Amino acid sequence: EIVLAIVELLSGKKPLAGKRVLITAGGTVERLDPVRYITNDSSGKMGFALAEAARDQGADVTLVCARTDGPPPAGVRIVKAESAEEMRAAVLARLPEADAVVKAAAVADYRPSVRHGSKMKKGPDRLTLELERTPDILQAIGDWKREAEASGAARSPLPFVVGFAAETDDVERNALDKLARKRCDLIVANDVSREGAGFGADTNIVSVYGAEGLIEALPLQSKRAVAERLWKLVRERAGWEEPGR
Amino acid sequence: EIVLAIVELLSGKKPLAGKRVLITAGGTVERLDPVRYITNDSSGKMGFALAEAARDQGADVTLVCARTDGPPPAGVRIVKAESAEEMRAAVLARLPEADAVVKAAAVADYRPSVRHGSKMKKGPDRLTLELERTPDILQAIGDWKREAEASGAARSPLPFVVGFAAETDDVERNALDKLARKRCDLIVANDVSREGAGFGADTNIVSVYGAEGLIEALPLQSKRAVAERLWKLVRERAGWEEPGR
Repeated sequence: EIVLAIVELLSGKKPLAGKRVLITAGGTVERLDPVRYITNDSSGKMGFALAEAARDQGADVTLVCARTDGPPPAGVRIVKAESAEEMRAAVLARLPEADAVVKAAAVADYRPSVRHGSKMKKGPDRLTLELERTPDILQAIGDWKREAEASGAARSPLPFVVGFAAETDDVERNALDKLARKRCDLIVANDVSREGAGFGADTNIVSVYGAEGLIEALPLQSKRAVAERLWKLVRERAGWEEPGR
Repeated sequence: EIVLAIVELLSGKKPLAGKRVLITAGGTVERLDPVRYITNDSSGKMGFALAEAARDQGADVTLVCARTDGPPPAGVRIVKAESAEEMRAAVLARLPEADAVVKAAAVADYRPSVRHGSKMKKGPDRLTLELERTPDILQAIGDWKREAEASGAARSPLPFVVGFAAETDDVERNALDKLARKRCDLIVANDVSREGAGFGADTNIVSVYGAEGLIEALPLQSKRAVAERLWKLVRERAGWEEPGR
């Protein structure tokens, strides 16, 4: 497979040429007031690697970026989206034109119910912060696909959707549950509690699930190598190329 | 003054030679679970500029870093401290050997009362997050100075202490209040709601307060220029050089 990849590279073959892919990256920022926020350890590196790999394979790449550790890659279209709500809007607006969507961003599940207009002052020893659920973007994509199919108005095929699941417990069960509930095409699960996997690292250890269950478990490798493998799976499963080459 | 600074530079004069300075930088991270945290918009740039200026003036610099946007400057001693609690411990441990302490970090006022050992699952539509106060590091330094004086055991003089106040409302009142309550020597107040001031920017607009009130208001300038001016004020007020040179 490595040999084939090198052959493709040398021959200038672009297996994603003509494909429009939408990738999300980074950790969303949910503000309490003008200076404080809730976020997570996502560095954006997995999404950046996916964008670079797709770009190098000839895709037209749009990268929706929340907070990331470094600057995004060159040669891709950048859309800034700080919060889950902004990311939802950015993704849904671009969904109708996408051939594939890969949701590598770590989107907050909860946000403060109230955002204060000025910096909150120190007050009592304890306080409670009211949180509310953020929009579930993967669910919204699933709902959009279902409606598009029902109305018959959408182009065919609908975008191929890849979700990520960052878990510390019950990785497989949670990934399969997410896949079923949100009707996406692939779920990439990583156990962020494992050394060398997930947030901030340059490497990852992931398991890829489809509707039929575990497709493959990728051992520790660079995020770029994980990205190459994921695009290969997307191309096969989306019917863009024959499997097993 | 610029001419004098150039003369000092060319003559190799090191106005902070022999001084040990302790600087804090960045925004603290207060974790809810293994992947989520509360933080703030501090980039660490003001603390980095203070460290670079002190290093170039010949000081022995220790930089206590929380989360920052980029890597810290070279040529200074780096101590990592993610949370307010870690930063408190790092600062207090090094206080007895410091000639000056400049607290440029944006330390969280509140942290989650409970830190979950594994990633919290999505649950109900709303939830409340219980928060508790973090240790007040500037107050702890003030208390340490008072005890050192009372016991008579401390070396003299005690460290010269500079606090920062990032405010969006009532900047002057809050700065003077902080100065009085925590008995530090200078408070640098910046209104983070003003364009070009505070978090993330390469420039700042600050007002410097002493026990007698406003000392000077520095107009929009680079954080490095602000740092140079602050070290000048520290040298004068700590009695390390004659004022007004």
